[in-house]
Amino acid sequence: MSNSTTPKWQQTVTEKRGIRDDAIRKFIDSHQYENSTTNPASTDQVDGILEAISSGAVTATKLCHAYIARLTEILFDDALNRAEELDQYFKEHGKLVGPLHGVPMTLKDQFDVKGYDSTLGYVGRAFKPAKQDCVVVSLLRQMGAVIMAKSNLPQSIMWCETENPLWGLTTHPLKSDFTPGGSTGGEGTLLSLQGTVVGWGTDIGGSVRIPSHMNGLFGLKPSSTRLPYHDVSVSTDGQEHIPSVIGPMTRSVSSLISVTKSVIDAAPWKLDPKCSPIPWRSEMFDDVQSRPLVIAVMRDDGVVKCHPPVSRVLEEVAAKLKTAGHELVDWTPGSLHQQCIDIMDRYYTADGGEDVKRDIAAGGEPFIPHVEALVNRGKAISVYDYWQLNKEKVAAQKRFLDLWNSTRSQTSGKQIDLLLAPVMPHSAVPHRKCRWVGYTKVFNVVDYPSVVLPAGAVSRELDSTSAAEMGAYKPRNQLDEWNWATFDLNSMDGMPIGVQIIASRLEEEKALGAAQMVDKVLRGVATP
Amino acid sequence: MSNSTTPKWQQTVTEKRGIRDDAIRKFIDSHQYENSTTNPASTDQVDGILEAISSGAVTATKLCHAYIARLTEILFDDALNRAEELDQYFKEHGKLVGPLHGVPMTLKDQFDVKGYDSTLGYVGRAFKPAKQDCVVVSLLRQMGAVIMAKSNLPQSIMWCETENPLWGLTTHPLKSDFTPGGSTGGEGTLLSLQGTVVGWGTDIGGSVRIPSHMNGLFGLKPSSTRLPYHDVSVSTDGQEHIPSVIGPMTRSVSSLISVTKSVIDAAPWKLDPKCSPIPWRSEMFDDVQSRPLVIAVMRDDGVVKCHPPVSRVLEEVAAKLKTAGHELVDWTPGSLHQQCIDIMDRYYTADGGEDVKRDIAAGGEPFIPHVEALVNRGKAISVYDYWQLNKEKVAAQKRFLDLWNSTRSQTSGKQIDLLLAPVMPHSAVPHRKCRWVGYTKVFNVVDYPSVVLPAGAVSRELDSTSAAEMGAYKPRNQLDEWNWATFDLNSMDGMPIGVQIIASRLEEEKALGAAQMVDKVLRGVATP
Repeated sequence: MSNSTTPKWQQTVTEKRGIRDDAIRKFIDSHQYENSTTNPASTDQVDGILEAISSGAVTATKLCHAYIARLTEILFDDALNRAEELDQYFKEHGKLVGPLHGVPMTLKDQFDVKGYDSTLGYVGRAFKPAKQDCVVVSLLRQMGAVIMAKSNLPQSIMWCETENPLWGLTTHPLKSDFTPGGSTGGEGTLLSLQGTVVGWGTDIGGSVRIPSHMNGLFGLKPSSTRLPYHDVSVSTDGQEHIPSVIGPMTRSVSSLISVTKSVIDAAPWKLDPKCSPIPWRSEMFDDVQSRPLVIAVMRDDGVVKCHPPVSRVLEEVAAKLKTAGHELVDWTPGSLHQQCIDIMDRYYTADGGEDVKRDIAAGGEPFIPHVEALVNRGKAISVYDYWQLNKEKVAAQKRFLDLWNSTRSQTSGKQIDLLLAPVMPHSAVPHRKCRWVGYTKVFNVVDYPSVVLPAGAVSRELDSTSAAEMGAYKPRNQLDEWNWATFDLNSMDGMPIGVQIIASRLEEEKALGAAQMVDKVLRGVATP
Repeated sequence: MSNSTTPKWQQTVTEKRGIRDDAIRKFIDSHQYENSTTNPASTDQVDGILEAISSGAVTATKLCHAYIARLTEILFDDALNRAEELDQYFKEHGKLVGPLHGVPMTLKDQFDVKGYDSTLGYVGRAFKPAKQDCVVVSLLRQMGAVIMAKSNLPQSIMWCETENPLWGLTTHPLKSDFTPGGSTGGEGTLLSLQGTVVGWGTDIGGSVRIPSHMNGLFGLKPSSTRLPYHDVSVSTDGQEHIPSVIGPMTRSVSSLISVTKSVIDAAPWKLDPKCSPIPWRSEMFDDVQSRPLVIAVMRDDGVVKCHPPVSRVLEEVAAKLKTAGHELVDWTPGSLHQQCIDIMDRYYTADGGEDVKRDIAAGGEPFIPHVEALVNRGKAISVYDYWQLNKEKVAAQKRFLDLWNSTRSQTSGKQIDLLLAPVMPHSAVPHRKCRWVGYTKVFNVVDYPSVVLPAGAVSRELDSTSAAEMGAYKPRNQLDEWNWATFDLNSMDGMPIGVQIIASRLEEEKALGAAQMVDKVLRGVATP
């Protein structure tokens, strides 16, 4: 097994991947899988699953087999055991265990599951199984969810693509030389390939939203403290300045709403000391869907201009919202977004990269180049200076809140309800070409909830004119130049494009209700 | 003005105190004050003031004059102008400006008020007037409150007595060689002397609760994020590990409830980016007053044993609650409280005292001895180690939450509603004799709301037997020995004693509703 010429870290990689592959092979050998296309279409969403099981059209076990065939990871025995338990319960009691009975779910490899590693993509964390389920997994299980697998993420987590020496590179389902985004790239891919119904990710700069955007999915980045992070392992654990949050990713807005509401209804604050005791507010969810809204639109963050297809899709959404009776106003942050991002960038070097360096040293694997650049970008600052940085952050948050309050309807003077924004300045791009996450990161700094929903795709037909016109575009700065250089209408054709719907802090119900409304508008469903 | 033999810092002290004294003198010369005893008794509380003004029995101006005569600080002109405006408004419109119309309030010298210093007791912050009102002052003013003065606090704020070189030593109203507690000692004294109706303090280890306890007052330490801290100046500003909170102090539970509810009803989260958007929950407030409760009792924190009068008062409260139909169970934290306090003590040295040292260096004044000891207790730690400490804190918070959830009725199995605890192991003590704030500090670490209410007093008659029996007490440790050595029944006779009512995190309505119920039980008012 050990080989004197192979570094220890590579031996761990071989061993860990071997175990995964064996677990998959065992299942492929021992079970007769239906072809994935035989899944009843209705079992593609949370509500459909409950109906299908309740009506006897499918069993949790049958469904679980179907999804496992598309996965690359390893809780299959547990998942099938749980599915059989659920079927038994339904058979005996004639009712569902809870609001997520039989719903297959997968987890980014940060969520602690008892008996399984949370590697975070670090070799040094392999073969160190978690002692207990994290709070959200515990709640999901109680409500009947079937946890099937864990999925890939980038070294250090803090990156918008998905690559690490332990598990390798995750590629885009539509084009293998493109990134599916990150850091929750594993879940983005699984969902896109219909390998799961709900994928749980984390987001500290866009890590739920970016892969949702790039793979045509729905994703929620809540405000921190709304969903339970307790016992989810993470890089720079213990930093409380800009908290990472957990969030679900799905293929439908209804699944996104169901699973979020279910977790909040389970009162996570009774188990996670950091959670806010705010129950699900149906009136807020309903209200935002029942009246004309005032919606601010951010077309450009002033740093990196969006590629023509991204701008076109945003304008299409804006136009449809206007037609549906909503009022659109301009979002004019001046340099405020840039200020927020500068503050966040200074936090990255607060510990001089010590946290990530320790994890990589523990496994001995090489640095991915962008991670090496990140951890060597600056020296550690003192705790006193760290506190001064926190003050700057709160001052910026206050300016953002004041801007939000003062952005108003030009006719009625009413405050805005929502902000509509791009997710990234581009659709999916070739591997290692992502550089700018300013469109998402700013909402981590201010801690506002954001829902991404699919709104269109790059189109050779629709975008060729504006692309040609933009040929003469003079980039504003290096990042903008770099982004512009990645634009290639031919190779990007068909790549999904999402938009962000942002609401005020801790107003997840409003963001989700609005996303449902916008989704209906985009699909041409009549709304009041 | 300048004197070559007098240090610069002392010149600043003389100048600053002179301005204050002149401001008071001007008022004493130019206004005819009624004797304080002529205040209608009903204007001692928020509700009474509104009734008295509405009925025409008193005006805001008359009331303001009466309170100023008892004060030592300097917003008098503004206060009277505002009071006259309020009277004018009432005269014109026949209605009150808001739920705090005409209510005199004072502020610990941390709350930014436009045009006035927030010295925090530091010489170096003198003559640096705030550019704007802090959020809570802005909301209070909008609701009609009349801000009359700011009051004293200790150097560094982080101490449970009240002394600094700029403003001097604040003494206990009943006994000048005793401390009124701290750090909100100025407000404790003002309230005790009927110099204000609502005193606003801050609490990071007991600073609202300790002076409330020592002066026979009501005080609320909420969970952080419930009341707006924005633009309240503070030591170690920017530290987010154990946030300081603002809280009101009053002479009645009804005032405490009115003012807290008013601020929450004003939606502080619309102005303070850190506030939780949780409206006032009347059903939680009512529920806790309408049924038999399960109440855990903490009699001893295992570190410093309470003086006999403190234990007697706690047992009296417990016995009355039992008679009133509530169930009492033991709170058995083992070493958990000590673990929480150890973590907090390690935070004190996180910046190596740099924040406090800088403020003192800026003014050049001498260190108060205990502050010097505090800032020299340990070296600064790295940001990485600071994050590890945050992890320990969250793990301790989780153990506390689990303990709370598992502490249950022995008959019904129901979870506890509340925790009843002493505030300090002693009543007011001579100056510079306080050492142990473990009974309060632990609830800052876990961030649970706590209401202090007056429950009794040291009594030569009632406590002499147990005091004599305790003569043979063998202290457990140095702190315990020190506390025991401060016990003197004769000199402490008559000193007030409070108790803490603690509820779960962000359940301020429950803590306040329970405090109202307990207050009724203690005063023999029938409850359901």
